[in-house]
Amino acid sequence: MMSRSQPAVHPLEVPPLTDAAENAVPMRVRMKDIQGMPGTPAGLALRVCQFVFAAVSLCVMATTNDFPSVTAFRYPHLSPPLISSILSLNRYLVAAVILQSLWSLSLAIVDVYALLVKRCLRNSRVISLFTMGDGITSTLTFAAACASAGITVLIGNDFNNCAQNHCTRFETATAMAFMSWFAVSPSFFLNFWSLASR
Amino acid sequence: MMSRSQPAVHPLEVPPLTDAAENAVPMRVRMKDIQGMPGTPAGLALRVCQFVFAAVSLCVMATTNDFPSVTAFRYPHLSPPLISSILSLNRYLVAAVILQSLWSLSLAIVDVYALLVKRCLRNSRVISLFTMGDGITSTLTFAAACASAGITVLIGNDFNNCAQNHCTRFETATAMAFMSWFAVSPSFFLNFWSLASR
Repeated sequence: MMSRSQPAVHPLEVPPLTDAAENAVPMRVRMKDIQGMPGTPAGLALRVCQFVFAAVSLCVMATTNDFPSVTAFRYPHLSPPLISSILSLNRYLVAAVILQSLWSLSLAIVDVYALLVKRCLRNSRVISLFTMGDGITSTLTFAAACASAGITVLIGNDFNNCAQNHCTRFETATAMAFMSWFAVSPSFFLNFWSLASR
Repeated sequence: MMSRSQPAVHPLEVPPLTDAAENAVPMRVRMKDIQGMPGTPAGLALRVCQFVFAAVSLCVMATTNDFPSVTAFRYPHLSPPLISSILSLNRYLVAAVILQSLWSLSLAIVDVYALLVKRCLRNSRVISLFTMGDGITSTLTFAAACASAGITVLIGNDFNNCAQNHCTRFETATAMAFMSWFAVSPSFFLNFWSLASR
């Protein structure tokens, strides 16, 4: 495993010339142009955006840990199961943005490393790993954001004094999760594209 | 910067080849093998699955058009804004599965035509159009299904007599929308792959 991935990580080492010579030509034509792939400054910027949005969403949600008591106190007409299911959806959103922020942070670190040592991240296995991870985390984040948006619409319509309570925070967290999903999508598509075009 | 990173991308200096001869071979090898693309029987089966799931979801939702009165009658502790927001989310789900079923039906017809006259749908513009349409409809369907799932969790936890009311229908429609999304995803990825690999 390590010895097979070594030529892609150490490009100045001369690899065996069998199929690398065939792959090099389309790589040179296509790979150079697209910014946003792993190992490029635009890719790092995308990762940082993903991490920042997910982290902001997480912070906003984490600072509303008095949400259960406030909700039950202010809205006695809502039944306890309704409140508990709202809270379980909140927990799902928190879990999704935690996963998203950890993934984006680790890939941002990998990008910084690749930029600093001027190494190439164009190994096929690495890119397929990145693609799968991006696909999974972006799907989870999008699902959590959509479910939260549904709940937010519900809460916002039902509670008239939404401005004074935690509703704004909830909406902010949902919007930040959507922004994080928007930032993951280009990374996913670029990785998938580079995986398919080789 | 660009000239310094060039050796990392090109580990080998390759003699210039005629790249038309290189590109022709992998295209012929790849395009033939992958079932599920437009114009293949598996692609037609995928389209039919998408259409059937979306249509079932639509029918289940459309037959519950007495949902507002039933909900307001059975659950007087829910406020009218809460019920109306549940209904607006239902309407969004209905709109999304209508769009999905129309799109899948039209592409199924195109597939049937291509299979009957043995024509190839490998035009680049056609595939990019298919890819965009698949991406948009699948995102809308997935978002609607997730929002409906959030609402379903909420309703299912809150209402104890969920078995006797329209809750099962609502869950069925949501599940069918998810199934339709699952069936759209392979079409989207295969189209994107064939778009990138040419």
